[in-house]
Amino acid sequence: MPTSLSKQNSTPGAWVFLDGEILAREAAKISVNDRGFLFAHAAYEVTAVVNGNLIDFEHHMARLEHTLAGIEVDMPSIDFAEIHAELIDRNQLQEGLVYVHVTAGDQGPRDYYGPEQLTPSVYISVTHKQLIGSVAREGLTAIFYEDTRWQRRDLKTTQLLTQTLAYRAARRAGADTAILYEAGLVTEAASANLWIVNADGTLITRDLSSALLPGITRGRLISLLESDGHRIEERAVSREQVLHAQEAFTSSTGVVIAPVLSIDGVAIGSGRPGSVTRKVQAAYYQYIGADLDQLDWL
Amino acid sequence: MPTSLSKQNSTPGAWVFLDGEILAREAAKISVNDRGFLFAHAAYEVTAVVNGNLIDFEHHMARLEHTLAGIEVDMPSIDFAEIHAELIDRNQLQEGLVYVHVTAGDQGPRDYYGPEQLTPSVYISVTHKQLIGSVAREGLTAIFYEDTRWQRRDLKTTQLLTQTLAYRAARRAGADTAILYEAGLVTEAASANLWIVNADGTLITRDLSSALLPGITRGRLISLLESDGHRIEERAVSREQVLHAQEAFTSSTGVVIAPVLSIDGVAIGSGRPGSVTRKVQAAYYQYIGADLDQLDWL
Repeated sequence: MPTSLSKQNSTPGAWVFLDGEILAREAAKISVNDRGFLFAHAAYEVTAVVNGNLIDFEHHMARLEHTLAGIEVDMPSIDFAEIHAELIDRNQLQEGLVYVHVTAGDQGPRDYYGPEQLTPSVYISVTHKQLIGSVAREGLTAIFYEDTRWQRRDLKTTQLLTQTLAYRAARRAGADTAILYEAGLVTEAASANLWIVNADGTLITRDLSSALLPGITRGRLISLLESDGHRIEERAVSREQVLHAQEAFTSSTGVVIAPVLSIDGVAIGSGRPGSVTRKVQAAYYQYIGADLDQLDWL
Repeated sequence: MPTSLSKQNSTPGAWVFLDGEILAREAAKISVNDRGFLFAHAAYEVTAVVNGNLIDFEHHMARLEHTLAGIEVDMPSIDFAEIHAELIDRNQLQEGLVYVHVTAGDQGPRDYYGPEQLTPSVYISVTHKQLIGSVAREGLTAIFYEDTRWQRRDLKTTQLLTQTLAYRAARRAGADTAILYEAGLVTEAASANLWIVNADGTLITRDLSSALLPGITRGRLISLLESDGHRIEERAVSREQVLHAQEAFTSSTGVVIAPVLSIDGVAIGSGRPGSVTRKVQAAYYQYIGADLDQLDWL
Protein backbone atom coordinates (compact mmCIF):
# COMPACT_ATOMS: atom_id res chain seq x y z
CA MET A 1 0.00 0.00 0.00
CA PRO A 2 1.52 3.41 -0.93
CA THR A 3 2.02 5.71 2.02
CA SER A 4 0.67 9.21 1.77
CA LEU A 5 2.75 11.49 3.94
CA SER A 6 0.00 14.08 4.16
CA LYS A 7 -2.35 11.37 5.42
CA GLN A 8 0.27 10.20 7.91
CA ASN A 9 0.70 13.71 9.23
CA SER A 10 -2.93 13.81 10.20
CA THR A 11 -2.92 10.33 11.78
CA PRO A 12 -1.80 10.42 15.42
CA GLY A 13 0.87 7.86 16.20
CA ALA A 14 1.76 7.35 12.57
CA TRP A 15 5.46 8.28 12.71
CA VAL A 16 7.73 5.52 13.92
CA PHE A 17 11.47 4.93 14.20
CA LEU A 18 13.02 1.88 12.57
CA ASP A 19 16.77 1.29 12.42
CA GLY A 20 17.88 4.86 12.09
CA GLU A 21 14.96 6.27 10.14
CA ILE A 22 11.75 8.04 11.04
CA LEU A 23 9.02 6.74 8.75
CA ALA A 24 5.29 6.12 8.49
CA ARG A 25 4.14 3.05 10.41
CA GLU A 26 2.80 1.39 7.24
CA ALA A 27 6.26 1.64 5.70
CA ALA A 28 7.98 0.03 8.71
CA LYS A 29 8.68 -3.58 7.74
CA ILE A 30 10.75 -6.28 9.36
CA SER A 31 12.95 -8.88 7.70
CA VAL A 32 11.68 -12.47 7.89
CA ASN A 33 15.19 -13.27 9.19
CA ASP A 34 14.80 -10.93 12.17
CA ARG A 35 15.66 -12.89 15.32
CA GLY A 36 12.82 -11.21 17.17
CA PHE A 37 10.42 -12.65 14.61
CA LEU A 38 12.06 -16.10 14.48
CA PHE A 39 13.02 -16.72 18.12
CA ALA A 40 11.38 -13.97 20.23
CA HIS A 41 14.98 -12.84 20.65
CA ALA A 42 13.87 -9.33 21.58
CA ALA A 43 13.35 -6.90 24.46
CA TYR A 44 10.83 -4.11 24.80
CA GLU A 45 9.89 -1.19 27.01
CA VAL A 46 6.89 1.09 27.27
CA THR A 47 7.27 4.56 28.80
CA ALA A 48 4.34 6.79 29.73
CA VAL A 49 4.03 10.35 28.44
CA VAL A 50 2.05 12.93 30.42
CA ASN A 51 1.85 16.56 29.28
CA GLY A 52 4.42 15.65 26.66
CA ASN A 53 6.92 14.49 29.32
CA LEU A 54 8.35 11.01 29.69
CA ILE A 55 7.80 9.44 33.11
CA ASP A 56 10.77 7.67 34.74
CA PHE A 57 12.43 7.31 31.35
CA GLU A 58 15.88 6.53 32.81
CA HIS A 59 14.44 3.60 34.76
CA HIS A 60 12.89 2.17 31.61
CA MET A 61 16.17 2.50 29.73
CA ALA A 62 18.05 0.84 32.60
CA ARG A 63 15.59 -2.07 32.54
CA LEU A 64 15.95 -2.32 28.76
CA GLU A 65 19.69 -2.65 29.21
CA HIS A 66 19.13 -5.34 31.89
CA THR A 67 16.85 -7.31 29.56
CA LEU A 68 19.24 -6.98 26.62
CA ALA A 69 22.16 -8.18 28.75
CA GLY A 70 20.05 -11.22 29.71
CA ILE A 71 19.45 -12.09 26.06
CA GLU A 72 23.04 -11.31 24.99
CA VAL A 73 22.31 -8.23 22.93
CA ASP A 74 24.30 -5.01 23.37
CA MET A 75 22.41 -1.84 24.21
CA PRO A 76 22.06 -0.05 20.84
CA SER A 77 24.37 2.94 20.63
CA ILE A 78 21.67 5.39 19.63
CA ASP A 79 20.31 8.37 21.53
CA PHE A 80 17.05 6.91 22.83
CA ALA A 81 16.11 10.14 24.61
CA GLU A 82 16.49 12.17 21.44
CA ILE A 83 14.45 9.70 19.37
CA HIS A 84 11.73 9.61 22.01
CA ALA A 85 11.63 13.41 22.00
CA GLU A 86 11.45 13.52 18.23
CA LEU A 87 8.61 10.98 18.04
CA ILE A 88 6.70 12.78 20.79
CA ASP A 89 7.11 16.00 18.83
CA ARG A 90 6.30 14.67 15.35
CA ASN A 91 3.29 12.72 16.61
CA GLN A 92 2.15 15.63 18.80
CA LEU A 93 1.92 13.23 21.72
CA GLN A 94 0.61 14.91 24.86
CA GLU A 95 -0.50 11.80 26.72
CA GLY A 96 0.13 8.17 25.91
CA LEU A 97 2.90 5.64 25.52
CA VAL A 98 6.21 5.25 23.73
CA TYR A 99 6.98 1.64 22.83
CA VAL A 100 10.59 0.53 22.24
CA HIS A 101 11.31 -2.86 20.71
CA VAL A 102 14.91 -4.03 20.33
CA THR A 103 15.53 -7.33 18.57
CA ALA A 104 18.71 -9.32 18.01
CA GLY A 105 18.35 -8.25 14.38
CA ASP A 106 18.57 -9.92 11.00
CA GLN A 107 21.71 -12.04 11.20
CA GLY A 108 21.07 -14.02 8.04
CA PRO A 109 19.03 -17.21 7.62
CA ARG A 110 17.51 -18.94 10.67
CA ASP A 111 20.24 -20.27 12.98
CA TYR A 112 19.89 -20.53 16.74
CA TYR A 113 23.47 -19.51 17.53
CA GLY A 114 23.73 -16.34 15.47
CA PRO A 115 27.04 -14.46 15.44
CA GLU A 116 28.72 -13.86 18.80
CA GLN A 117 28.15 -10.13 18.39
CA LEU A 118 24.51 -9.48 17.59
CA THR A 119 23.68 -6.23 15.79
CA PRO A 120 20.34 -5.12 17.21
CA SER A 121 17.36 -3.79 15.31
CA VAL A 122 15.33 -1.00 16.92
CA TYR A 123 11.67 -0.14 16.39
CA ILE A 124 9.98 2.69 18.33
CA SER A 125 6.37 3.82 18.06
CA VAL A 126 3.88 5.87 20.06
CA THR A 127 0.27 5.44 21.11
CA HIS A 128 -2.08 8.29 21.96
CA LYS A 129 -3.96 7.19 25.06
CA GLN A 130 -5.71 8.71 28.05
CA LEU A 131 -3.70 7.09 30.85
CA ILE A 132 -6.08 8.05 33.67
CA GLY A 133 -9.42 7.06 32.23
CA SER A 134 -12.47 4.96 32.95
CA VAL A 135 -10.45 1.98 34.18
CA ALA A 136 -8.77 4.11 36.85
CA ARG A 137 -12.14 5.46 37.93
CA GLU A 138 -14.25 2.30 37.70
CA GLY A 139 -11.78 -0.53 38.10
CA LEU A 140 -11.27 -3.91 36.47
CA THR A 141 -12.66 -7.39 36.80
CA ALA A 142 -10.23 -10.28 36.59
CA ILE A 143 -9.84 -14.03 36.37
CA PHE A 144 -7.13 -16.22 37.84
CA TYR A 145 -4.93 -17.76 35.15
CA GLU A 146 -2.06 -20.20 35.57
CA ASP A 147 1.32 -18.57 35.04
CA THR A 148 2.94 -20.71 32.36
CA ARG A 149 5.64 -18.19 31.44
CA TRP A 150 9.33 -18.93 31.20
CA GLN A 151 11.51 -18.63 34.28
CA ARG A 152 13.21 -15.28 33.49
CA ARG A 153 10.26 -12.97 33.97
CA ASP A 154 12.56 -10.27 35.29
CA LEU A 155 13.50 -9.83 31.62
CA LYS A 156 11.00 -7.87 29.56
CA THR A 157 11.15 -9.96 26.39
CA THR A 158 8.63 -10.54 23.62
CA GLN A 159 7.90 -14.07 24.87
CA LEU A 160 4.38 -12.85 25.63
CA LEU A 161 2.16 -15.77 24.68
CA THR A 162 0.97 -16.51 28.20
CA GLN A 163 -0.04 -12.89 28.66
CA THR A 164 -1.83 -12.89 25.31
CA LEU A 165 -3.71 -16.11 26.07
CA ALA A 166 -4.53 -14.84 29.58
CA TYR A 167 -6.09 -11.64 28.24
CA ARG A 168 -8.09 -13.61 25.69
CA ALA A 169 -9.28 -16.06 28.36
CA ALA A 170 -10.31 -13.10 30.51
CA ARG A 171 -12.35 -11.61 27.69
CA ARG A 172 -14.09 -14.93 27.05
CA ALA A 173 -15.00 -15.02 30.75
CA GLY A 174 -16.42 -11.51 30.50
CA ALA A 175 -13.54 -10.04 32.53
CA ASP A 176 -10.93 -7.39 31.77
CA THR A 177 -7.66 -8.94 32.85
CA ALA A 178 -6.01 -11.93 34.48
CA ILE A 179 -4.12 -12.47 37.72
CA LEU A 180 -1.36 -15.01 37.16
CA TYR A 181 -0.46 -17.61 39.75
CA GLU A 182 2.04 -20.40 40.08
CA ALA A 183 2.22 -23.08 42.77
CA GLY A 184 -0.71 -21.40 44.52
CA LEU A 185 1.03 -18.02 44.77
CA VAL A 186 0.17 -14.98 42.73
CA THR A 187 3.03 -13.73 40.58
CA GLU A 188 1.56 -10.60 38.97
CA ALA A 189 -1.28 -9.51 36.68
CA ALA A 190 -1.18 -10.24 32.94
CA SER A 191 0.83 -7.08 32.20
CA ALA A 192 0.98 -5.28 35.55
CA ASN A 193 2.11 -5.86 39.12
CA LEU A 194 -0.55 -6.75 41.67
CA TRP A 195 -1.03 -5.11 45.06
CA ILE A 196 -3.40 -5.93 47.87
CA VAL A 197 -4.42 -3.92 50.92
CA ASN A 198 -4.98 -5.71 54.22
CA ALA A 199 -7.53 -4.86 56.92
CA ASP A 200 -4.89 -2.85 58.81
CA GLY A 201 -4.07 -0.81 55.71
CA THR A 202 -0.78 -2.55 54.91
CA LEU A 203 0.02 -2.66 51.20
CA ILE A 204 1.47 -5.95 49.95
CA THR A 205 3.10 -6.64 46.59
CA ARG A 206 5.32 -9.54 45.60
CA ASP A 207 9.05 -9.29 46.30
CA LEU A 208 11.27 -9.08 43.24
CA SER A 209 12.78 -12.25 41.81
CA SER A 210 12.96 -13.95 38.42
CA ALA A 211 9.27 -14.87 38.94
CA LEU A 212 7.96 -11.41 38.01
CA LEU A 213 8.78 -8.20 36.21
CA PRO A 214 10.34 -5.42 38.29
CA GLY A 215 7.70 -2.85 37.39
CA ILE A 216 8.89 0.73 37.08
CA THR A 217 5.52 2.00 38.37
CA ARG A 218 5.75 -0.57 41.20
CA GLY A 219 9.19 0.71 42.21
CA ARG A 220 8.13 4.35 42.04
CA LEU A 221 5.00 3.60 44.10
CA ILE A 222 7.01 1.93 46.84
CA SER A 223 9.16 5.01 47.31
CA LEU A 224 6.23 7.44 47.05
CA LEU A 225 4.06 5.47 49.48
CA GLU A 226 6.81 4.85 51.98
CA SER A 227 7.56 8.56 52.16
CA ASP A 228 3.82 9.13 52.67
CA GLY A 229 4.00 6.85 55.75
CA HIS A 230 2.23 3.81 54.26
CA ARG A 231 3.27 0.35 55.49
CA ILE A 232 4.46 -1.80 52.59
CA GLU A 233 5.38 -5.47 52.64
CA GLU A 234 7.07 -7.10 49.68
CA ARG A 235 6.12 -10.77 49.72
CA ALA A 236 4.15 -13.36 47.79
CA VAL A 237 0.49 -13.95 48.63
CA SER A 238 -1.84 -16.81 47.78
CA ARG A 239 -4.96 -16.60 45.64
CA GLU A 240 -7.03 -16.94 48.81
CA GLN A 241 -5.23 -14.03 50.43
CA VAL A 242 -6.01 -11.88 47.41
CA LEU A 243 -9.68 -12.85 47.52
CA HIS A 244 -9.83 -11.97 51.22
CA ALA A 245 -8.00 -8.65 50.90
CA GLN A 246 -9.77 -5.37 51.64
CA GLU A 247 -8.67 -3.91 48.33
CA ALA A 248 -6.60 -4.89 45.33
CA PHE A 249 -5.14 -2.91 42.47
CA THR A 250 -2.62 -3.26 39.68
CA SER A 251 0.24 -0.95 38.75
CA SER A 252 1.67 -0.64 35.25
CA THR A 253 2.86 1.92 32.76
CA GLY A 254 -0.07 1.49 30.40
CA VAL A 255 -3.01 1.37 32.81
CA VAL A 256 -1.17 3.13 35.66
CA ILE A 257 -3.18 2.22 38.83
CA ALA A 258 -6.31 0.16 38.29
CA PRO A 259 -8.63 -1.00 41.11
CA VAL A 260 -9.36 -4.75 40.91
CA LEU A 261 -13.02 -5.23 41.83
CA SER A 262 -13.42 -8.97 41.55
CA ILE A 263 -11.64 -12.16 40.52
CA ASP A 264 -13.53 -15.10 39.03
CA GLY A 265 -16.71 -13.30 40.07
CA VAL A 266 -15.70 -13.01 43.74
CA ALA A 267 -15.76 -9.41 44.98
CA ILE A 268 -12.60 -8.07 46.60
CA GLY A 269 -13.64 -6.16 49.75
CA SER A 270 -16.66 -4.00 48.92
CA GLY A 271 -16.34 -4.77 45.21
CA ARG A 272 -15.71 -1.07 44.60
CA PRO A 273 -12.45 0.92 44.35
CA GLY A 274 -11.22 1.26 47.94
CA SER A 275 -10.06 4.30 49.88
CA VAL A 276 -6.42 3.20 50.09
CA THR A 277 -6.40 2.60 46.34
CA ARG A 278 -7.72 6.13 45.83
CA LYS A 279 -4.88 7.51 47.98
CA VAL A 280 -2.35 5.52 45.96
CA GLN A 281 -3.83 6.86 42.75
CA ALA A 282 -3.73 10.43 44.03
CA ALA A 283 -0.10 10.13 45.12
CA TYR A 284 1.00 8.66 41.81
CA TYR A 285 -1.07 10.99 39.62
CA GLN A 286 0.44 13.91 41.45
CA TYR A 287 3.90 12.49 40.87
CA ILE A 288 3.36 12.22 37.10
CA GLY A 289 1.94 15.72 36.91
CA ALA A 290 -1.71 14.93 36.19
CA ASP A 291 -4.29 17.64 36.92
CA LEU A 292 -6.00 16.25 40.04
CA ASP A 293 -8.69 18.93 39.90
CA GLN A 294 -10.05 17.34 36.74
CA LEU A 295 -10.43 13.95 38.49
CA ASP A 296 -13.59 14.65 40.48
CA TRP A 297 -14.01 10.94 41.30
CA LEU A 298 -10.71 10.84 43.17
CA MET B 1 17.37 -3.01 -1.77
CA PRO B 2 16.02 -3.87 -5.25
CA THR B 3 15.66 -7.60 -5.85
CA SER B 4 17.11 -9.03 -9.03
CA LEU B 5 15.05 -12.02 -10.05
CA SER B 6 17.85 -13.41 -12.19
CA LYS B 7 20.14 -13.30 -9.14
CA GLN B 8 17.48 -14.97 -7.01
CA ASN B 9 17.10 -17.77 -9.50
CA SER B 10 20.71 -18.71 -9.02
CA THR B 11 20.59 -18.52 -5.22
CA PRO B 12 19.39 -21.78 -3.65
CA GLY B 13 16.65 -21.25 -1.10
CA ALA B 14 15.83 -17.80 -2.35
CA TRP B 15 12.15 -18.31 -3.21
CA VAL B 16 9.81 -18.06 -0.28
CA PHE B 17 6.06 -17.97 0.28
CA LEU B 18 4.50 -15.08 2.17
CA ASP B 19 0.75 -14.61 2.53
CA GLY B 20 -0.29 -15.98 -0.83
CA GLU B 21 2.70 -14.94 -2.90
CA ILE B 22 5.92 -16.61 -3.95
CA LEU B 23 8.68 -14.03 -3.81
CA ALA B 24 12.39 -13.57 -3.27
CA ARG B 25 13.44 -13.85 0.38
CA GLU B 26 14.84 -10.31 0.40
CA ALA B 27 11.44 -8.99 -0.62
CA ALA B 28 9.61 -10.88 2.15
CA LYS B 29 8.88 -8.33 4.88
CA ILE B 30 6.71 -8.47 7.96
CA SER B 31 4.53 -5.76 9.44
CA VAL B 32 5.72 -4.27 12.73
CA ASN B 33 2.18 -4.99 13.95
CA ASP B 34 2.52 -8.72 13.28
CA ARG B 35 1.55 -10.57 16.45
CA GLY B 36 4.37 -13.05 15.90
CA PHE B 37 6.82 -10.16 16.06
CA LEU B 38 5.13 -8.40 19.00
CA PHE B 39 4.05 -11.32 21.23
CA ALA B 40 5.68 -14.49 19.81
CA HIS B 41 2.09 -15.34 18.92
CA ALA B 42 3.23 -17.82 16.27
CA ALA B 43 3.71 -21.50 15.48
CA TYR B 44 6.28 -23.13 13.23
CA GLU B 45 7.21 -26.47 11.71
CA VAL B 46 10.24 -27.81 9.88
CA THR B 47 9.87 -30.78 7.52
CA ALA B 48 12.81 -32.69 6.06
CA VAL B 49 13.23 -33.23 2.33
CA VAL B 50 15.19 -36.22 1.02
CA ASN B 51 15.49 -36.90 -2.72
CA GLY B 52 12.97 -34.12 -3.21
CA ASN B 53 10.38 -35.89 -1.01
CA LEU B 54 8.88 -34.56 2.20
CA ILE B 55 9.32 -36.87 5.21
CA ASP B 56 6.26 -37.43 7.44
CA PHE B 57 4.69 -34.25 6.13
CA GLU B 58 1.19 -35.10 7.42
CA HIS B 59 2.52 -35.49 10.95
CA HIS B 60 4.13 -32.06 10.78
CA MET B 61 0.92 -30.49 9.54
CA ALA B 62 -1.06 -32.24 12.29
CA ARG B 63 1.35 -30.86 14.89
CA LEU B 64 1.09 -27.39 13.34
CA GLU B 65 -2.68 -27.59 13.75
CA HIS B 66 -2.23 -28.72 17.38
CA THR B 67 0.07 -25.77 18.11
CA LEU B 68 -2.22 -23.28 16.39
CA ALA B 69 -5.22 -24.56 18.37
CA GLY B 70 -3.18 -24.03 21.55
CA ILE B 71 -2.50 -20.41 20.64
CA GLU B 72 -6.04 -19.76 19.36
CA VAL B 73 -5.21 -19.38 15.69
CA ASP B 74 -7.17 -21.25 13.01
CA MET B 75 -5.25 -23.49 10.64
CA PRO B 76 -4.78 -21.35 7.49
CA SER B 77 -7.03 -22.54 4.70
CA ILE B 78 -4.28 -22.83 2.12
CA ASP B 79 -2.92 -25.92 0.41
CA PHE B 80 0.29 -26.44 2.39
CA ALA B 81 1.24 -29.54 0.39
CA GLU B 82 0.98 -27.66 -2.90
CA ILE B 83 3.03 -24.72 -1.61
CA HIS B 84 5.68 -27.07 -0.23
CA ALA B 85 5.84 -28.82 -3.60
CA GLU B 86 6.13 -25.53 -5.45
CA LEU B 87 8.92 -24.23 -3.22
CA ILE B 88 10.80 -27.54 -3.48
CA ASP B 89 10.51 -27.29 -7.24
CA ARG B 90 11.36 -23.60 -7.65
CA ASN B 91 14.30 -23.85 -5.27
CA GLN B 92 15.45 -27.19 -6.78
CA LEU B 93 15.56 -28.65 -3.30
CA GLN B 94 16.81 -32.24 -3.29
CA GLU B 95 17.82 -32.46 0.37
CA GLY B 96 17.15 -30.03 3.17
CA LEU B 97 14.35 -28.45 5.16
CA VAL B 98 11.08 -26.63 4.58
CA TYR B 99 10.27 -24.14 7.32
CA VAL B 100 6.66 -23.05 7.93
CA HIS B 101 5.93 -20.09 10.21
CA VAL B 102 2.31 -19.16 10.98
CA THR B 103 1.69 -16.05 13.06
CA ALA B 104 -1.51 -14.58 14.48
CA GLY B 105 -1.04 -11.88 11.84
CA ASP B 106 -1.20 -8.10 11.73
CA GLN B 107 -4.38 -7.23 13.62
CA GLY B 108 -3.68 -3.53 13.93
CA PRO B 109 -1.70 -1.70 16.61
CA ARG B 110 -0.28 -3.61 19.59
CA ASP B 111 -3.08 -4.98 21.77
CA TYR B 112 -2.83 -8.21 23.77
CA TYR B 113 -6.40 -9.34 23.12
CA GLY B 114 -6.57 -8.97 19.35
CA PRO B 115 -9.85 -9.78 17.59
CA GLU B 116 -11.61 -13.00 18.57
CA GLN B 117 -10.97 -14.40 15.11
CA LEU B 118 -7.30 -14.03 14.26
CA THR B 119 -6.37 -13.99 10.57
CA PRO B 120 -3.05 -15.80 10.34
CA SER B 121 -0.01 -14.80 8.35
CA VAL B 122 2.03 -17.55 6.69
CA TYR B 123 5.73 -17.54 5.79
CA ILE B 124 7.40 -20.60 4.23
CA SER B 125 11.04 -20.95 3.19
CA VAL B 126 13.50 -23.71 2.38
CA THR B 127 17.08 -24.49 3.35
CA HIS B 128 19.46 -26.62 1.30
CA LYS B 129 21.24 -28.88 3.76
CA GLN B 130 22.93 -32.28 3.86
CA LEU B 131 20.82 -33.96 6.54
CA ILE B 132 23.13 -36.94 7.06
CA GLY B 133 26.49 -35.26 7.36
CA SER B 134 29.49 -34.97 9.62
CA VAL B 135 27.38 -34.64 12.81
CA ALA B 136 25.66 -37.96 12.11
CA ARG B 137 29.04 -39.59 11.50
CA GLU B 138 31.09 -37.98 14.25
CA GLY B 139 28.57 -36.94 16.87
CA LEU B 140 28.05 -33.92 19.09
CA THR B 141 29.38 -32.62 22.37
CA ALA B 142 26.90 -31.04 24.76
CA ILE B 143 26.46 -29.09 27.96
CA PHE B 144 23.68 -29.33 30.51
CA TYR B 145 21.53 -26.19 30.56
CA GLU B 146 18.61 -25.38 32.82
CA ASP B 147 15.27 -25.61 31.04
CA THR B 148 13.69 -22.21 31.65
CA ARG B 149 11.05 -22.53 28.91
CA TRP B 150 7.35 -21.92 29.38
CA GLN B 151 5.11 -24.76 30.48
CA ARG B 152 3.47 -25.59 27.11
CA ARG B 153 6.45 -27.13 25.35
CA ASP B 154 4.16 -29.51 23.51
CA LEU B 155 3.31 -26.46 21.39
CA LYS B 156 5.92 -25.59 18.76
CA THR B 157 5.82 -21.82 19.15
CA THR B 158 8.40 -19.14 18.43
CA GLN B 159 9.04 -18.60 22.15
CA LEU B 160 12.56 -19.90 21.52
CA LEU B 161 14.75 -17.74 23.72
CA THR B 162 15.84 -20.54 26.04
CA GLN B 163 16.90 -22.64 23.09
CA THR B 164 18.77 -19.70 21.57
CA LEU B 165 20.58 -18.91 24.82
CA ALA B 166 21.32 -22.62 25.36
CA TYR B 167 22.97 -22.95 21.94
CA ARG B 168 24.99 -19.81 22.57
CA ALA B 169 26.09 -21.05 25.99
CA ALA B 170 27.10 -24.36 24.41
CA ARG B 171 29.23 -22.59 21.84
CA ARG B 172 30.94 -20.51 24.53
CA ALA B 173 31.76 -23.75 26.35
CA GLY B 174 33.24 -25.20 23.17
CA ALA B 175 30.33 -27.63 22.74
CA ASP B 176 27.79 -28.13 19.97
CA THR B 177 24.47 -28.31 21.75
CA ALA B 178 22.72 -28.32 25.12
CA ILE B 179 20.74 -30.91 27.04
CA LEU B 180 17.94 -29.18 28.96
CA TYR B 181 16.94 -30.25 32.46
CA GLU B 182 14.39 -29.20 35.03
CA ALA B 183 14.09 -30.34 38.64
CA GLY B 184 16.99 -32.72 38.03
CA LEU B 185 15.31 -34.49 35.11
CA VAL B 186 16.27 -34.12 31.50
CA THR B 187 13.49 -32.74 29.30
CA GLU B 188 15.04 -32.80 25.83
CA ALA B 189 17.97 -31.33 23.88
CA ALA B 190 17.97 -27.69 22.77
CA SER B 191 16.02 -28.47 19.56
CA ALA B 192 15.81 -32.26 19.55
CA ASN B 193 14.57 -35.13 21.68
CA LEU B 194 17.16 -37.02 23.73
CA TRP B 195 17.57 -40.79 23.87
CA ILE B 196 19.86 -42.94 25.99
CA VAL B 197 20.82 -46.58 25.65
CA ASN B 198 21.24 -48.68 28.79
CA ALA B 199 23.72 -51.50 29.36
CA ASP B 200 21.08 -54.07 28.39
CA GLY B 201 20.38 -52.25 25.12
CA THR B 202 17.10 -50.70 26.20
CA LEU B 203 16.39 -47.35 24.55
CA ILE B 204 14.92 -44.68 26.82
CA THR B 205 13.36 -41.37 25.84
CA ARG B 206 11.13 -39.11 27.88
CA ASP B 207 7.39 -39.79 27.87
CA LEU B 208 5.25 -37.15 26.21
CA SER B 209 3.73 -34.36 28.30
CA SER B 210 3.61 -30.58 28.22
CA ALA B 211 7.26 -30.67 29.38
CA LEU B 212 8.65 -31.47 25.93
CA LEU B 213 7.94 -31.37 22.22
CA PRO B 214 6.38 -34.48 20.68
CA GLY B 215 9.09 -34.93 18.06
CA ILE B 216 7.97 -36.31 14.71
CA THR B 217 11.32 -38.09 14.29
CA ARG B 218 10.97 -39.40 17.87
CA GLY B 219 7.52 -40.82 17.11
CA ARG B 220 8.64 -42.40 13.86
CA LEU B 221 11.71 -43.92 15.55
CA ILE B 222 9.60 -45.53 18.25
CA SER B 223 7.47 -47.35 15.71
CA LEU B 224 10.46 -48.30 13.51
CA LEU B 225 12.53 -49.57 16.44
CA GLU B 226 9.70 -51.46 18.08
CA SER B 227 8.99 -53.33 14.86
CA ASP B 228 12.72 -54.13 14.69
CA GLY B 229 12.44 -55.75 18.14
CA HIS B 230 14.20 -53.04 20.19
CA ARG B 231 13.08 -52.49 23.79
CA ILE B 232 11.92 -48.91 24.31
CA GLU B 233 10.94 -47.22 27.54
CA GLU B 234 9.30 -43.81 27.57
CA ARG B 235 10.19 -42.16 30.85
CA ALA B 236 12.17 -39.29 32.31
CA VAL B 237 15.80 -39.79 33.31
CA SER B 238 18.10 -37.74 35.52
CA ARG B 239 21.27 -36.01 34.42
CA GLU B 240 23.27 -38.69 36.25
CA GLN B 241 21.48 -41.47 34.37
CA VAL B 242 22.37 -39.79 31.09
CA LEU B 243 26.02 -39.48 32.10
CA HIS B 244 26.09 -43.18 33.06
CA ALA B 245 24.33 -44.41 29.91
CA GLN B 246 26.13 -46.64 27.42
CA GLU B 247 25.14 -44.37 24.56
CA ALA B 248 23.14 -41.23 23.97
CA PHE B 249 21.78 -39.59 20.83
CA THR B 250 19.33 -36.91 19.77
CA SER B 251 16.53 -37.14 17.22
CA SER B 252 15.20 -34.16 15.28
CA THR B 253 14.12 -33.12 11.82
CA GLY B 254 17.11 -30.90 11.18
CA VAL B 255 19.99 -33.02 12.49
CA VAL B 256 18.10 -36.34 12.22
CA ILE B 257 20.00 -38.74 14.55
CA ALA B 258 23.10 -37.35 16.21
CA PRO B 259 25.31 -39.34 18.61
CA VAL B 260 26.01 -37.42 21.84
CA LEU B 261 29.62 -38.07 22.79
CA SER B 262 29.98 -36.08 25.99
CA ILE B 263 28.17 -33.65 28.28
CA ASP B 264 30.05 -31.00 30.24
CA GLY B 265 33.23 -32.82 29.22
CA VAL B 266 32.14 -36.19 30.65
CA ALA B 267 32.23 -38.95 28.04
CA ILE B 268 29.03 -40.96 27.51
CA GLY B 269 30.03 -44.65 27.33
CA SER B 270 33.09 -44.96 25.11
CA GLY B 271 32.86 -41.33 24.05
CA ARG B 272 32.31 -42.49 20.48
CA PRO B 273 29.09 -43.17 18.52
CA GLY B 274 27.77 -46.49 19.85
CA SER B 275 26.62 -49.60 18.05
CA VAL B 276 22.95 -49.22 19.00
CA THR B 277 23.01 -45.61 17.80
CA ARG B 278 24.41 -46.85 14.48
CA LYS B 279 21.54 -49.35 14.19
CA VAL B 280 19.03 -46.59 14.94
CA GLN B 281 20.62 -44.39 12.29
CA ALA B 282 20.54 -47.19 9.72
CA ALA B 283 16.87 -47.93 10.41
CA TYR B 284 15.86 -44.31 10.13
CA TYR B 285 18.02 -43.49 7.11
CA GLN B 286 16.52 -46.47 5.32
CA TYR B 287 13.04 -45.22 6.22
CA ILE B 288 13.67 -41.77 4.71
CA GLY B 289 15.16 -43.27 1.56
CA ALA B 290 18.81 -42.32 2.03
CA ASP B 291 21.42 -44.27 0.05
CA LEU B 292 23.02 -46.40 2.78
CA ASP B 293 25.77 -47.57 0.43
CA GLN B 294 27.16 -44.06 0.40
CA LEU B 295 27.43 -44.04 4.20
CA ASP B 296 30.56 -46.18 4.60
CA TRP B 297 30.90 -45.16 8.27
CA LEU B 298 27.54 -46.73 9.17
